[in-house]
Amino acid sequence: MQTELSTTLGVEHAVFGFTPFPAVAAAISRAGGFGVLGAVRYTAPDDLARDLDWIDAHVGGRPYGLDVVMPARKVEGVSEADVEAMIPPGHRQFVQDTLAKYGVPDLPAGEAAGWRITGWMEQVARAQLDVAFGHPIRLLANALGSPPPDVVARAHDRGVLVAALAGSARHARKHKDAGIDIVVAQGYEAGGHTGEIASMVLTPEVVEEVHPLPVLAAGGIGSGEQVCAALSLGAQGVWLGSMWLTTTEADLHSPALTRKLLAATSSDTVRSRALTGKPARQLRTEWTDAWDGADSPGPLPMPLQGLLVAEAVSRIQRYEVEPLLGTPVGQIVGRMTAERSVQEVFDDLTRGFERAVDRINRIAGRSDR
Amino acid sequence: MQTELSTTLGVEHAVFGFTPFPAVAAAISRAGGFGVLGAVRYTAPDDLARDLDWIDAHVGGRPYGLDVVMPARKVEGVSEADVEAMIPPGHRQFVQDTLAKYGVPDLPAGEAAGWRITGWMEQVARAQLDVAFGHPIRLLANALGSPPPDVVARAHDRGVLVAALAGSARHARKHKDAGIDIVVAQGYEAGGHTGEIASMVLTPEVVEEVHPLPVLAAGGIGSGEQVCAALSLGAQGVWLGSMWLTTTEADLHSPALTRKLLAATSSDTVRSRALTGKPARQLRTEWTDAWDGADSPGPLPMPLQGLLVAEAVSRIQRYEVEPLLGTPVGQIVGRMTAERSVQEVFDDLTRGFERAVDRINRIAGRSDR
Repeated sequence: MQTELSTTLGVEHAVFGFTPFPAVAAAISRAGGFGVLGAVRYTAPDDLARDLDWIDAHVGGRPYGLDVVMPARKVEGVSEADVEAMIPPGHRQFVQDTLAKYGVPDLPAGEAAGWRITGWMEQVARAQLDVAFGHPIRLLANALGSPPPDVVARAHDRGVLVAALAGSARHARKHKDAGIDIVVAQGYEAGGHTGEIASMVLTPEVVEEVHPLPVLAAGGIGSGEQVCAALSLGAQGVWLGSMWLTTTEADLHSPALTRKLLAATSSDTVRSRALTGKPARQLRTEWTDAWDGADSPGPLPMPLQGLLVAEAVSRIQRYEVEPLLGTPVGQIVGRMTAERSVQEVFDDLTRGFERAVDRINRIAGRSDR
Repeated sequence: MQTELSTTLGVEHAVFGFTPFPAVAAAISRAGGFGVLGAVRYTAPDDLARDLDWIDAHVGGRPYGLDVVMPARKVEGVSEADVEAMIPPGHRQFVQDTLAKYGVPDLPAGEAAGWRITGWMEQVARAQLDVAFGHPIRLLANALGSPPPDVVARAHDRGVLVAALAGSARHARKHKDAGIDIVVAQGYEAGGHTGEIASMVLTPEVVEEVHPLPVLAAGGIGSGEQVCAALSLGAQGVWLGSMWLTTTEADLHSPALTRKLLAATSSDTVRSRALTGKPARQLRTEWTDAWDGADSPGPLPMPLQGLLVAEAVSRIQRYEVEPLLGTPVGQIVGRMTAERSVQEVFDDLTRGFERAVDRINRIAGRSDR
């Protein structure tokens, strides 16, 4: 699975793996792919520095990257407290009522909410970048629009390629105009923030729109046959996120969540604004159902919703309250039916890819070549 | 583009084209694909007989099929008038108010609503079948679940293959259990009635679920690269519907609608219950927006909604009231940017398919073979 982009980056397979877990990121790169560590959960730059040091020691000299969540537009002089003050009391009450209904205990005294998507606040993301540029990252991805121009310039000065996610051709064009190097076309079926356009339609539209920039296809990819499909659509590689959640190297800290992921079918996700305020695909749970229900006050816009639910999500996770327990994940969750190592996932991807290429050649009447 | 199924049916390309227009169906089969005429708009069996006669005279001896909309469960002794009586007056008022807001004129005296999805009523569909089995159809497709067992048996007695649409693996399994021969996996991005699962995920799930039955991939396919992707996912062919709407052989009877289709992007469709009561992807219009709006009484269940809006849709179409004018169409509408003949669409599909196969072989390191 060699494309121009995988050759440029010096990796064996044009398979990019996004993950919040350093051990998974390192294993992806060691297996011949390109591991990308998600930084959004790191509140303290020191924690990120520690984990990047760990990756450097365990990646075997292979290239890897970092994914941040950085808004293109800066909001000056607004603190987290200012944003918290914008949350209506009725919304806070709905959260507390829903938690009470399921008997979700409080966090132990002195334990802060661990789940906070504060990485998307620009000052946090910039502190992460200061750390990251001190490590040998080869790629910087941004999940929330194009990064600011000075960040793109700083990356380019260091020979770091910049990638950005797009859910439409129009969105992708903005990335190209902002000097981005790689566009990740994120289809409707993908986990996390997604648009309405499915990968089958979106990938070739983005490829055509940003030509000659390389495009990675994201959304719905978890087998070698799906890799072959995505590359048929013109992508120079694939971007997988969900698949790694149930690998043995992943560290979900929740046997109940792992069980739910392994049991879920492709019909068990929902695109909901309940987690961050923007539509994000995730496991459908009684928590997302509550936000979609008749009594719901409706999710708040980003970043208010993320702040509103941060403590609740931490409590649900800490006590593994099964009916409410969820995570961002794509429709490919239906294929995640057993825990496997990252290497096993890669072996399966490469075997499936070869099978698909054989089959396509037979259909094209080239099997005798 | 030769698969086991295309060989069985004796067609050159594993491309199945669904269309309401006899001239398009015949042109698809003449171009080496497999044309499937949609019967749902035929209220009178004689009209269907006339159009099938026309196809027989113009298809050049190539095989073709028929698509009906037949409920698996029979509702005994219920007339169209009984069903009409179940529509709440508030819903009728909403339709009239919305039409009045846009100044949509009444139909001329004596002119009946031409647009009626009455084909889904079982007695109508059965009358269609009596006609169809008198013609050399090779395939009978049903868009609404498995056809009743006696219909499947009748088709098999005549050597007619039976296909049914499915939006999930569970749904596809029911078709297999009902003795269906071919499953059409209809992805989220498809036009008309669709589920939530996108083609990239749905196709391989259905292939695995109904193995060894052949699967056709539907949804998001309009280029040879997309054909290659769908076949990579294990499909034995592709099922295209939207693409033919803007061919020169199509007969939309509405220059305004053709203009809207040619101008629409992949972001300009919506999955709405406004047309039939079940979620169906269609052009997003001020009509679908009205049904999604705050004042909307909400669409009624099938078949009530279809009966409720039948006259309104006819009036909107007859007077080409542009803001309200729509049609079922998939996200692939973004690729429909110029009127072309059916043959030109096929030439484009086959060229794109060969390009994609070349590219995949290069990526797989087989370009030297």
